[in-house]
Amino acid sequence: MTATRFFSDNAAAVHPAVMEAIAAANQVDTAYDGDALSVSLDDAFSQLFETRCEVVWVSSGTAANSIILAHFARPWQGIFCHEEAHIEVDECGAPTFYSGGAKLMPLPGRGAKIDAEALGRRLAAIRKDVHQVQPAAISITNATEYGLAWRRDEIAQIGEIARAAGLKLHMDGARFANSVAFLGCAPADVTWRAGVDALSFGFTKNGAMLAEALVFFGGCGGEGVRELKKRGGHLLSKGRFVAAQIRAMLTDDLWLANARAANAGAAALAAACGERLLYPVEANELFLRLSADEATRLRSAGYDFYDWGEGAARLVVSWDQDAAAVAPLADAIAHL
Amino acid sequence: MTATRFFSDNAAAVHPAVMEAIAAANQVDTAYDGDALSVSLDDAFSQLFETRCEVVWVSSGTAANSIILAHFARPWQGIFCHEEAHIEVDECGAPTFYSGGAKLMPLPGRGAKIDAEALGRRLAAIRKDVHQVQPAAISITNATEYGLAWRRDEIAQIGEIARAAGLKLHMDGARFANSVAFLGCAPADVTWRAGVDALSFGFTKNGAMLAEALVFFGGCGGEGVRELKKRGGHLLSKGRFVAAQIRAMLTDDLWLANARAANAGAAALAAACGERLLYPVEANELFLRLSADEATRLRSAGYDFYDWGEGAARLVVSWDQDAAAVAPLADAIAHL
Amino acid sequence: MTATRFFSDNAAAVHPAVMEAIAAANQVDTAYDGDALSVSLDDAFSQLFETRCEVVWVSSGTAANSIILAHFARPWQGIFCHEEAHIEVDECGAPTFYSGGAKLMPLPGRGAKIDAEALGRRLAAIRKDVHQVQPAAISITNATEYGLAWRRDEIAQIGEIARAAGLKLHMDGARFANSVAFLGCAPADVTWRAGVDALSFGFTKNGAMLAEALVFFGGCGGEGVRELKKRGGHLLSKGRFVAAQIRAMLTDDLWLANARAANAGAAALAAACGERLLYPVEANELFLRLSADEATRLRSAGYDFYDWGEGAARLVVSWDQDAAAVAPLADAIAHL
Amino acid sequence: MTATRFFSDNAAAVHPAVMEAIAAANQVDTAYDGDALSVSLDDAFSQLFETRCEVVWVSSGTAANSIILAHFARPWQGIFCHEEAHIEVDECGAPTFYSGGAKLMPLPGRGAKIDAEALGRRLAAIRKDVHQVQPAAISITNATEYGLAWRRDEIAQIGEIARAAGLKLHMDGARFANSVAFLGCAPADVTWRAGVDALSFGFTKNGAMLAEALVFFGGCGGEGVRELKKRGGHLLSKGRFVAAQIRAMLTDDLWLANARAANAGAAALAAACGERLLYPVEANELFLRLSADEATRLRSAGYDFYDWGEGAARLVVSWDQDAAAVAPLADAIAHL
Repeated sequence: MTATRFFSDNAAAVHPAVMEAIAAANQVDTAYDGDALSVSLDDAFSQLFETRCEVVWVSSGTAANSIILAHFARPWQGIFCHEEAHIEVDECGAPTFYSGGAKLMPLPGRGAKIDAEALGRRLAAIRKDVHQVQPAAISITNATEYGLAWRRDEIAQIGEIARAAGLKLHMDGARFANSVAFLGCAPADVTWRAGVDALSFGFTKNGAMLAEALVFFGGCGGEGVRELKKRGGHLLSKGRFVAAQIRAMLTDDLWLANARAANAGAAALAAACGERLLYPVEANELFLRLSADEATRLRSAGYDFYDWGEGAARLVVSWDQDAAAVAPLADAIAHL
Repeated sequence: MTATRFFSDNAAAVHPAVMEAIAAANQVDTAYDGDALSVSLDDAFSQLFETRCEVVWVSSGTAANSIILAHFARPWQGIFCHEEAHIEVDECGAPTFYSGGAKLMPLPGRGAKIDAEALGRRLAAIRKDVHQVQPAAISITNATEYGLAWRRDEIAQIGEIARAAGLKLHMDGARFANSVAFLGCAPADVTWRAGVDALSFGFTKNGAMLAEALVFFGGCGGEGVRELKKRGGHLLSKGRFVAAQIRAMLTDDLWLANARAANAGAAALAAACGERLLYPVEANELFLRLSADEATRLRSAGYDFYDWGEGAARLVVSWDQDAAAVAPLADAIAHL
Repeated sequence: MTATRFFSDNAAAVHPAVMEAIAAANQVDTAYDGDALSVSLDDAFSQLFETRCEVVWVSSGTAANSIILAHFARPWQGIFCHEEAHIEVDECGAPTFYSGGAKLMPLPGRGAKIDAEALGRRLAAIRKDVHQVQPAAISITNATEYGLAWRRDEIAQIGEIARAAGLKLHMDGARFANSVAFLGCAPADVTWRAGVDALSFGFTKNGAMLAEALVFFGGCGGEGVRELKKRGGHLLSKGRFVAAQIRAMLTDDLWLANARAANAGAAALAAACGERLLYPVEANELFLRLSADEATRLRSAGYDFYDWGEGAARLVVSWDQDAAAVAPLADAIAHL
Repeated sequence: MTATRFFSDNAAAVHPAVMEAIAAANQVDTAYDGDALSVSLDDAFSQLFETRCEVVWVSSGTAANSIILAHFARPWQGIFCHEEAHIEVDECGAPTFYSGGAKLMPLPGRGAKIDAEALGRRLAAIRKDVHQVQPAAISITNATEYGLAWRRDEIAQIGEIARAAGLKLHMDGARFANSVAFLGCAPADVTWRAGVDALSFGFTKNGAMLAEALVFFGGCGGEGVRELKKRGGHLLSKGRFVAAQIRAMLTDDLWLANARAANAGAAALAAACGERLLYPVEANELFLRLSADEATRLRSAGYDFYDWGEGAARLVVSWDQDAAAVAPLADAIAHL
């Protein structure tokens, strides 16, 4: 089945090491987030990111993004994001809900990367008065919704604009691992060193069961974050089972290994797609031209994926689908 | 460790059958709640409750309560509850958050059971104008925060008041299993047959890892429920792992067996407490008189529990602590 | 001073008849909105609109728009509007605040009129699932933010899309009077007969002091509207003074006379602007090309107005500025 | 009619000096709150309160209270108030709405004065964890909902508790003038000198048309206040007409003269009530024992007032009802 499923990395299995960590956590017995696993996260991420981090686990990416953004924006403020950002398009308004009303302010940009110039123009056009919503934060997605990895200097450019305007910079890292794996950089390079204040570090799509980490840099977490989490019903009473997943993903850089596997699968597919590709394939998603007839033929052959508007399709490769696993589909596409 | 831990059933282990179901779910691969396990819940609960149910899984009791209450109350309306109800005291305002502002309207009553007369008086005292918050729902907890089981006729009395006043009746069933196990009744008897419109059916405290079911009776679920869940970040992308836990708990009435075990443990402890008991022990919680000195002595002996104001303590027995497991503590209390 | 002030019709004086009505209301003595003046509004507007109306007064246009939209959209739903709509650009997020989180979904269109085709495309592109915000309403502004009057058939086209998609249609009529005065139509023609469900009928810019009417057609007001108003702090305790203003504006069609005067002033100015005009002048606003140097010269001559981006300006003519009153400015522009 | 109307000071007429100020403001022409009258409020109140104040006008007491409390409490925090406080009982949940969800935490106390000991106990009982709502502010009403004037030392006692616990202290001064008039103290004595951080200074009940002032002491206004006001639809476009009322009320201490007149009327009535009084009459409200039969007889004689539960009534004397004006009712009560 892994060979034929390409519609979402949410559909992937949980990695065995994560399952084992969950089983092992069944011995630990403190409620909520007071257990040793939960408490260990600050240190674990601080090491990974080479700086002091405050870390909070949640069980969904929507919760991760929403809590961070609600922490950064007051109800009457705004949050810049790409017009095709997940938070704008696919979270049913969750960031606005959690923040008590903050406004998402969508911006254009190729491949779901916010265009820095457009951001600058938009910022300049906002009157500094009480009638217009004043921005408090910028959110970028890395890898983007089109599978592109933000380069360090691109992030730094946005980070500089954020700093100059007094805005917080959030990174939705649902596929952060895939981006880092592609770039081969240190996690710090594309986060706090480039001006990122907080990261939604996603693990669920990359081999965990239900585990995401809110990672705050520079001490910008603090009061409000845990209240937002509790109030949102996300302080699970047996939280050790979430923390255990995250620890398993960090152990021996499983997060990176899984992302590399998925990326490799995507690269193998990309090679077969050639001119069909709408965007370079950098992470584990492919967007390609595909006629309705071609889509039908692939589906008849057992491959499952999403249409992406007319004449296009999205394929997502999961951590459990390496180059070998995607070979049949690559072949099928090459012979369309 | 199970022998010494009595502070919360949230600290209990996950039942092996649930762990197995989670492992088995690692083969299923549809995202969100479109998988076969999630889809099967309506039927499974409909059979258990002997009526058509709409069922939605979430991963925390706070989310379960909040989504149901937000579904029942508009932002400007109110929700009656006991002044010591979990939703009033221990959820950081989550029902108000989810509902966009609904007011919890606390009422007195012995053992955390809403006093029906007090409810009637309070209802009568509300002017039917736009200045006063008008109630939309009543929430009761079963078993109560003091471990008491609502009897069918007690619920029906509240249910009748609700019906007459046009209010929805919600039951917070974080320990619903323990109450049903104590009463030996059909689940239907203490829910829809007694006027309950929706139940937060808790499994996490009773052997699951993170799984609660919103159960709507009489077709009162519908539009809004899934939006509230998604918007709250509770539509987990690998939801099959939550649904799997619930299915495991329903299989061969594991929920009932676990509750019986916990109740039996509590009963064994209760026998040792004698005159110390502040409330009859019906479910798996005990509230007892305990001086600071006595508390210290028990803790020195390795027993962990919560103080409950001055001179009192709360003990909670979990599904994995039967009469044999609690014997040492029973003995220790008897010899204080 | 009226001769030199062109930056906003909010700066205009209150019409003497309104001042008299306020003085007269000082004899009436019932609190909130139970007074005879408030109660009389339903009938007064029902006559004006030739259909049964439910009418609620408020003291600001932002409150009027927000309460109507919050009545139409649940927190998780969306509201289509023009990307330059007042509710999107100039109300600090008030409709989102009042609705508990509803998302404004901006659309393009010439002169701040929503483009019907763009609306249709956007509607079609929304997946009918719980991840995407589903729309509940459309809001149009008449006259638009660029001073254009929506024609009956244009509104009906939007109304038909709304009806087909199950959306409510709201009209922000901060300058409704100016639009009706320009068109010379019946108020009914450009509201309920064209599919409008509720109108924010503005009086403040048109000679009142602080008075706007929420007008609901087809019985779509009802429960929630008065609660939203009270909860927003808009149920003024001496509401008779607001209702009095509205009654004065309706008496002998003062609203229409004032709007005609303002429109006539704008038309006289428009004649002097010739090729400078960016949009046809239909109501009481003019948008014209004006270099920074020209703007400086006009301001040096004592004229006050807003810049509108680079090289353009906005002039607004008020009810107390007829053709004669604007003659000096017309002359000054002609001689730039 | 003034002789027979005793149900609410909201029903009173507007004082002639206020009407004149409104008429005079019809010459001023800047929009929103940029006009000279609005801008002058900071200085005017700073002089009155003998300290630097930040002042914002609104048109209703509910808005005043809600904006201040929303400024002081984050959505997940709580606000202590008396269980019969106007904000708890009569504002349809507005403070919760404005704050995005803050919880009102009601306390007992004689005559609607929060009992300091009860406050202390409640504070001590709140666990400092994320499960329980943590308080951010205390709100007291002066004069209270039972017409009692808080003494300086009583306020200071609450103020001290607030300071020690890091809470802001808000005073709902819908009838602040009546309290100050009764006490004969400096306004500063019962506000900032006693620990009050912000005051809702009411003018509407005391001779204005629709005007209340948010008065912030110690620089605790600032960012957020004006955004909350705008977002709530309370930044009226012709705000000069509200500011004008406030300036008129401050001129020659009209606020104090009016309050003295109302208090004198109430005192005259009180003398006739004797043993019937449920509370001392300090401001302009009387609460008295009155049988249903007696109430009927008074109403038959043309007097209008509210029942207050069974066997009791509330009478309110307005600024335009001095001792002479209330004489007939005093006589009628004496002869019941």
